Amino acid sequence: MSENIKIAILGFGNVGRAFARLLTEKQEEIYSKFNVKVDVVAVSTRSKGCLVNEEGIDLTGALNDLEKYNYFDESRSDYKDISSMKIAENVDYDILFELTPLQIFSGQPAIDHIKAALNRKKHAVSANKGPIAWAFKSLRDLADENNVLFYYETTVMDGTPVFNLVDETLKFCKVTEVKGILNSTTNFVLEEIAKGKSYDEVIQEGKKRGFVEEDPSMDIEGWDAAAKTAALLNVLMEADITPYDVDRKGIEDINYEKIKEAEARGNVIKLVCYGGIGAGKITARVRPEEVSKNSLLASITGTTSIVSITTDLMGTVSIVEHEPEIEQTAYGVFSDLVRVLSNNPLTN
Amino acid sequence: MSENIKIAILGFGNVGRAFARLLTEKQEEIYSKFNVKVDVVAVSTRSKGCLVNEEGIDLTGALNDLEKYNYFDESRSDYKDISSMKIAENVDYDILFELTPLQIFSGQPAIDHIKAALNRKKHAVSANKGPIAWAFKSLRDLADENNVLFYYETTVMDGTPVFNLVDETLKFCKVTEVKGILNSTTNFVLEEIAKGKSYDEVIQEGKKRGFVEEDPSMDIEGWDAAAKTAALLNVLMEADITPYDVDRKGIEDINYEKIKEAEARGNVIKLVCYGGIGAGKITARVRPEEVSKNSLLASITGTTSIVSITTDLMGTVSIVEHEPEIEQTAYGVFSDLVRVLSNNPLTN
Repeated sequence: MSENIKIAILGFGNVGRAFARLLTEKQEEIYSKFNVKVDVVAVSTRSKGCLVNEEGIDLTGALNDLEKYNYFDESRSDYKDISSMKIAENVDYDILFELTPLQIFSGQPAIDHIKAALNRKKHAVSANKGPIAWAFKSLRDLADENNVLFYYETTVMDGTPVFNLVDETLKFCKVTEVKGILNSTTNFVLEEIAKGKSYDEVIQEGKKRGFVEEDPSMDIEGWDAAAKTAALLNVLMEADITPYDVDRKGIEDINYEKIKEAEARGNVIKLVCYGGIGAGKITARVRPEEVSKNSLLASITGTTSIVSITTDLMGTVSIVEHEPEIEQTAYGVFSDLVRVLSNNPLTN
Repeated sequence: MSENIKIAILGFGNVGRAFARLLTEKQEEIYSKFNVKVDVVAVSTRSKGCLVNEEGIDLTGALNDLEKYNYFDESRSDYKDISSMKIAENVDYDILFELTPLQIFSGQPAIDHIKAALNRKKHAVSANKGPIAWAFKSLRDLADENNVLFYYETTVMDGTPVFNLVDETLKFCKVTEVKGILNSTTNFVLEEIAKGKSYDEVIQEGKKRGFVEEDPSMDIEGWDAAAKTAALLNVLMEADITPYDVDRKGIEDINYEKIKEAEARGNVIKLVCYGGIGAGKITARVRPEEVSKNSLLASITGTTSIVSITTDLMGTVSIVEHEPEIEQTAYGVFSDLVRVLSNNPLTN
């Protein structure tokens, strides 16, 4: 690595921009801790243009452009007509940041972007859960072969340390079980239906408030939760599974009556993610479950999420993320950058 | 450091023995990761004798002795009539483990044991919260001056990563607030009183079940919670306070009627620890508070505990320890050992 660390950012939506702002704010602190300056040498978007400048893009200017015009001005000297894949393959960077939108049934083209970086012996950070849910083992192996780092903290629970928690603070522990509430759309929908609102009404309101995607089926049918469950199991238990291997049931059959019946039993219904390993066999499932209304899981409401991690040496530890905003995801990406800078021998 | 890491263990009660068992089990894994063998060169107890052997004590034999006779056999060749302080000052070790019983109003003699180690440029690990609650800043400074490591993960929430969580996974974040339920005795007593049992009945039952100390006043009056609050603030916010600086109210005035009144308002009463920093001013308090019966805090029952940590960059993250046993505390001590081995340049 040179004294300036060069990073390429693929995908520059809300997360990418919030990360860029945080990076700009923390530039001095990074320099004082690691004695390096971090230059963004490439930024790609799908429809707003791309920027490439191996001397370092003026990030503040780029962010202002997007705010003012909603695209990069083609007259900028660093404007370039180039694809994300070409950036991954050809631009001179030290760390690739894969922040493109999720393709939930393939993990592509994010997987190929990351492979391109690792094959070039460049470090990679993914905020895209597709690669972790669909191809973790091959990416992990490729990173190891090339002796580079590959981090992905934000892929489950945004910036809340989950993978870092296990790697950095639960050393020597073997993870035997994970359990959690990881999809906030379904959590929101179940709570609103419990108030007596119709399914359609809830979806409309959720879209307005930004909790529900334009096409809510990936959440409602449990695919997003299944992808996160696969990611957790792949990383924490070397499960080598895909979302298709997760025994998945969404909340589409849960209605007001079922919620009230559960309530009469002192329970609430939550979409629970579970993964376990026993006798060498992996169990992975996502399904609506009744949990006691006084339980920890029942207390996880709205956009708050939780994962409980059981290990051989430390019993069960749970970590909760409270009502995250985009800044928390940006921090997660930033924390992966900091982890690369901390663990790369050349910056120490 | 030599290729063999020598450790001295002051205090060999339940935690010390569980740590010794874990160390014995993990010896090979430590060797394969760090290429060092960990030798216990001294073990002290207050009333069961001490062992010193600079070639390494036979731990399994020592544990068996205690199980069989409840003291170390004076005819052992490594038996020595020596005080914990003399061990700290004179035995040749690399890391001191301070596991002696807590003296809640002074932190002594644990503080002096640790100072003796740090002054000799030896690393120190404390499972004793006294030093962290009463003298953290001076110990931290002394460790820094002598360029040695000082860890204390178990002093709040046993082996659950709290200090490690902030240090290792929330880098660049500034802690602005902590809040938690950290004393399981009061948590248990409040729940039992809510069932209509008398205070005396609950205390007797708690003693039988091992949740309540012989003298329960340190818990009931909030001193244990205040010590943990001081420890959290000293480490995470550089507060430099003592338990006397914590605005403290115990649960001695909480009775069945008050709990039922709270219940009528949809609330439960919990002994809540709080610390915050605003405009340069530290607030630290422990007091019984009403929390909504559906809240995360309300779901923390029995010996389970929680701390919520708010930072500038990552919002609020909570970590929960579920019904810990002595093995979790032993893991916390072990994780501090692993942290010394990981961070000491000579073992890398």
